[in-house]
Amino acid sequence: MVKVGVIGATGYTGEEIIRILLRHPNIKITYLAAKIEKEQPIDEIFPYLSSRLDLNCEILDIQKAISKADLFFLALPHTVSFKVAPLLLAHNKKVIDLSADYRIKNLSVYEFWYKTKHTDTANVKKSVYGLPELYREKIKKADLVANPGCYPTAAILSLLPLLISESLENTAIIIDAKSGLTGAGRKASMDFFFSEINENLKPYKINSHQHMPEIEQELSKITEKKILLSFCPHLIPINRGILETIYCVPRSGIDQEKILRIYKKFYQTEPFVRIFEKSLPTIRDVVGTNFCDIAVKLDKQRDILIVVSAIDNLLKGAAGQAVQNMNLMCGFPETTALL
Amino acid sequence: MVKVGVIGATGYTGEEIIRILLRHPNIKITYLAAKIEKEQPIDEIFPYLSSRLDLNCEILDIQKAISKADLFFLALPHTVSFKVAPLLLAHNKKVIDLSADYRIKNLSVYEFWYKTKHTDTANVKKSVYGLPELYREKIKKADLVANPGCYPTAAILSLLPLLISESLENTAIIIDAKSGLTGAGRKASMDFFFSEINENLKPYKINSHQHMPEIEQELSKITEKKILLSFCPHLIPINRGILETIYCVPRSGIDQEKILRIYKKFYQTEPFVRIFEKSLPTIRDVVGTNFCDIAVKLDKQRDILIVVSAIDNLLKGAAGQAVQNMNLMCGFPETTALL
Amino acid sequence: MVKVGVIGATGYTGEEIIRILLRHPNIKITYLAAKIEKEQPIDEIFPYLSSRLDLNCEILDIQKAISKADLFFLALPHTVSFKVAPLLLAHNKKVIDLSADYRIKNLSVYEFWYKTKHTDTANVKKSVYGLPELYREKIKKADLVANPGCYPTAAILSLLPLLISESLENTAIIIDAKSGLTGAGRKASMDFFFSEINENLKPYKINSHQHMPEIEQELSKITEKKILLSFCPHLIPINRGILETIYCVPRSGIDQEKILRIYKKFYQTEPFVRIFEKSLPTIRDVVGTNFCDIAVKLDKQRDILIVVSAIDNLLKGAAGQAVQNMNLMCGFPETTALL
Amino acid sequence: MVKVGVIGATGYTGEEIIRILLRHPNIKITYLAAKIEKEQPIDEIFPYLSSRLDLNCEILDIQKAISKADLFFLALPHTVSFKVAPLLLAHNKKVIDLSADYRIKNLSVYEFWYKTKHTDTANVKKSVYGLPELYREKIKKADLVANPGCYPTAAILSLLPLLISESLENTAIIIDAKSGLTGAGRKASMDFFFSEINENLKPYKINSHQHMPEIEQELSKITEKKILLSFCPHLIPINRGILETIYCVPRSGIDQEKILRIYKKFYQTEPFVRIFEKSLPTIRDVVGTNFCDIAVKLDKQRDILIVVSAIDNLLKGAAGQAVQNMNLMCGFPETTALL
Repeated sequence: MVKVGVIGATGYTGEEIIRILLRHPNIKITYLAAKIEKEQPIDEIFPYLSSRLDLNCEILDIQKAISKADLFFLALPHTVSFKVAPLLLAHNKKVIDLSADYRIKNLSVYEFWYKTKHTDTANVKKSVYGLPELYREKIKKADLVANPGCYPTAAILSLLPLLISESLENTAIIIDAKSGLTGAGRKASMDFFFSEINENLKPYKINSHQHMPEIEQELSKITEKKILLSFCPHLIPINRGILETIYCVPRSGIDQEKILRIYKKFYQTEPFVRIFEKSLPTIRDVVGTNFCDIAVKLDKQRDILIVVSAIDNLLKGAAGQAVQNMNLMCGFPETTALL
Repeated sequence: MVKVGVIGATGYTGEEIIRILLRHPNIKITYLAAKIEKEQPIDEIFPYLSSRLDLNCEILDIQKAISKADLFFLALPHTVSFKVAPLLLAHNKKVIDLSADYRIKNLSVYEFWYKTKHTDTANVKKSVYGLPELYREKIKKADLVANPGCYPTAAILSLLPLLISESLENTAIIIDAKSGLTGAGRKASMDFFFSEINENLKPYKINSHQHMPEIEQELSKITEKKILLSFCPHLIPINRGILETIYCVPRSGIDQEKILRIYKKFYQTEPFVRIFEKSLPTIRDVVGTNFCDIAVKLDKQRDILIVVSAIDNLLKGAAGQAVQNMNLMCGFPETTALL
Repeated sequence: MVKVGVIGATGYTGEEIIRILLRHPNIKITYLAAKIEKEQPIDEIFPYLSSRLDLNCEILDIQKAISKADLFFLALPHTVSFKVAPLLLAHNKKVIDLSADYRIKNLSVYEFWYKTKHTDTANVKKSVYGLPELYREKIKKADLVANPGCYPTAAILSLLPLLISESLENTAIIIDAKSGLTGAGRKASMDFFFSEINENLKPYKINSHQHMPEIEQELSKITEKKILLSFCPHLIPINRGILETIYCVPRSGIDQEKILRIYKKFYQTEPFVRIFEKSLPTIRDVVGTNFCDIAVKLDKQRDILIVVSAIDNLLKGAAGQAVQNMNLMCGFPETTALL
Repeated sequence: MVKVGVIGATGYTGEEIIRILLRHPNIKITYLAAKIEKEQPIDEIFPYLSSRLDLNCEILDIQKAISKADLFFLALPHTVSFKVAPLLLAHNKKVIDLSADYRIKNLSVYEFWYKTKHTDTANVKKSVYGLPELYREKIKKADLVANPGCYPTAAILSLLPLLISESLENTAIIIDAKSGLTGAGRKASMDFFFSEINENLKPYKINSHQHMPEIEQELSKITEKKILLSFCPHLIPINRGILETIYCVPRSGIDQEKILRIYKKFYQTEPFVRIFEKSLPTIRDVVGTNFCDIAVKLDKQRDILIVVSAIDNLLKGAAGQAVQNMNLMCGFPETTALL
């Protein structure tokens, strides 16, 4: 029985981690902390946890955390994680960080996008990017996993097979992404007031979203080419889910059947990636699951290849993938508590 | 051409007043003010006003306001209006106040519910409660109209015919009210974050909502009895609209036909009250209109009378009724800009 | 390992039963049937089941069903179940019926509300009403369980403690119920087209909903008095969840503390009923769970007692409760697959 | 006072035409028809029209229609309009057709996409494509206007200035479109059941939507080049509104300022096109209006130009533009009833 702590327990991601862990037979939640006024029972903060989890959510105290748990999920804002993670790692705790702090390997890129000086550069080098489909073996041995961003998870899983198989003519890649509101985190901003979002739809941060360099980093690493893609996210009035419609140029001579075979072979042993042949991915099919659903559509007349993928931003895009990483790090079956 | 000012122009109600006034042929918007950081074009705040209204929204300056307009809508929070209204009235301006500040005639009741000492008691006495169906003639002559609350508008219009015709056995009245989110105003509170409201439904302030004494005041005045009703409001994940389901005990001997006749006769000349016989009111039928739709259903076996009514909380429940009041005060046809 | 069949697998309830059963360690889904054009893999009908359930959904063939499974969930429309259940029971299969066909004990009441002659009256007598909080011991021994309706589950659980403890002055009970759309089933009716429901809210079947006599039957049985209540349901633009606001008259002398004690004692060992003291139930807190959350609010001044309860209509209101019943019938721990 | 008939009055578009016309001072609605069981008052079909329009909706009778009105809106399904329009035109009536029947000039293209033989080819030639920004003078003189599709209206208005000014490097144009549900029409299909759409998001008809050739036709005509674009529409869980995110390759040397100047000059006298410089278009800003809002964003580093545009699919995308066309055809001020 592994003792687990969740730091940042009151955000949407922290909440979702707790929800999943309550179903996990091999761990026990032993520590909860968040930025709150005063310590209080977690089921006063989230009444739906009544009779399910009898634990206080505390104000973070590193010494206490260390004494209480062996593995920590950090569901903290960017630029906060890198102050907490090293303190836990120094005591041989395992850490799964859900912020961006350990994802971007090039510190000047990190500092440009997150507008802060990184103060834990040593651990950036050691951290493993927590996408099991790409780095499973490294994750098993890691002490610090940088859990991928939600948009990058869907984008990288969608493009990996094409890039590795060299099925694209060039690197002109356009990602038109649509996300539900929990992706924005739990913040009291007028921008996210119900009546501003409901019955509305808007693009934001066109080619200036902080997940763009994260996607570019991973795709460039795989292809060993500098990839600059276009990335336009949109807010959709739903709670959960991301759908990405990706446009790229196919290598000449390739056909729909060939591309499908590439995807199916690439993901044939993956427990959480599904290739759809008869229907297109929808948000509904992935919400509440840890799956990433992918379909591809080649239009030879227009010389364009369209990839559609969908994930639940809080599961495969955050908490679910984090637990998948924990399962790997702890030697549990990879799908435990996730099916 | 009457020159009109809107003070509190950036809330949902102020925004809606502007939207209606842009269609009004007899007035001109000449002054806009709101609690903002700095003066700026109104179409920077509300891009949908681009090319429709070329006016700055200013920080309130009473002297300037007085010099610019003849009639003012105050779309201000409770306890702010009573500091602004007397300054305008002192200069012979007409004022339509959309806050609760001039609705409650009994100051101790006001002070209990709004937790503030009222500092403009003289004008409370002079103000007219702006429900045209009840006080049309007084409104025509008023300088200060206290525009009714959204819940009270639907409740009073639903119960008036029954009470005046003495069709109820007793005063045991239960109002189960459901409201869209714009009723909560434009406030950056986590309670109203999209994902907290969407796919959710919750009751709030059971028998402790500040609109309850407003309804009781008006119904008691009509019946000359002390009426204490139960009032349970619920937040519904829609932008606009209120639906009230009202339960009361019919006088014995009365039947469905008789009650319908009472309602139809009572409202036969009213331009904005519709009695439905063949279908039940829905939010959809009133949103975007100034109508209040009402249906009644008598269950003789269970000895209960159920009244259902619906309004658009921002129109008949606020801005629409305010313009209806303006039309009366200025001698314009009552329905101008409202159909 | 119990072999389980789901008949009516393509409705919302059937779908939800499958979803829960996939997490159940003691059973195996061995048979699926529905009213479809032709047999096809269930994951073609529900792509989200891809890689999770490799089974065809068939056109119902009773002989085949009998040969394939030991226990059946009937997620069929009313008046269809009573043609299927006896055929399964005759072969010693256990049946959990989610329609209304075996809930109403008085056949003339059934026939009045469901407009059909019942053709399996023998099994109506033997069936057990599947509300574990009321009939747990009988359910354990039952071959045929009539799973309660969604509205009745919330209503009965809300009123049971008050009625049994004789805390009400009289039987004047008003239930104002609000339900999400999955409660309406999966039917291609224009009434349920997205744009007719979204941003709308409407009451329907006021005092004429078929769940009213079901609630009255159970409450009358408990109190041994004829209870006639008012029941007004409303459609809310959300997918899942029911919230009921119940108004009744408290026995004089009773107070809030006393009532709370009654509820807490009554449900102290129940795994799926939670009494809230500090906050009110919301849809959000129960969606995705098998809980029924209840709060009570006594207003002594107005002499009224308000009970608020919430359930997920597809879980505690249908599929969840059905699995809870299966757990009882099969001797599994009652909460298996439900937490 | 022009007498106007609406044929197809009960769909979303017909309903919206009625709503607008009720505010129009120069016309009178004198005839309504739809595919219904039997003639009935329009306010029984749409209770929100109670006390606003006292007219029956009839089963279409061409002779009666001809005797009742001078100008007709045909809000009929594709392939039905071309059977009705010629009968009206033969009697010198003016017709604004909202179906696709007269939009596509190349009949083999029409017949490929709409799977029907066109039987009114003569009028296809005479009809004018009703986009006032492109064909205003022809519309003024037209007897038959083919009102543009919703997606094409936003797409063509977005791309016109770029194509006419030759600001694009090539014709590789990608349109990622998002639409609310009223765009799907009022059809009882399980695909559009509330719970299938709500909290969901899905692409459909990727590069196979019938609006794609309509956009291609108009853009090819303007540029005198064969344009083949990619078009991927998505269904969004909102009632109204279309947002299109369009990706194309800018001519080298061009910059953001230059492009903005092109758009602003191109549309400087247009009453219903707004170019946004400080913010991006949103659905919220156009819903309920006849505006098309457009913004452009050039990314020189990635060599991509992104155009975002938004319209209300029922207004500028259908009924609003139809009334705009009527205003032009009848010599009324172009914005009458539309501001």
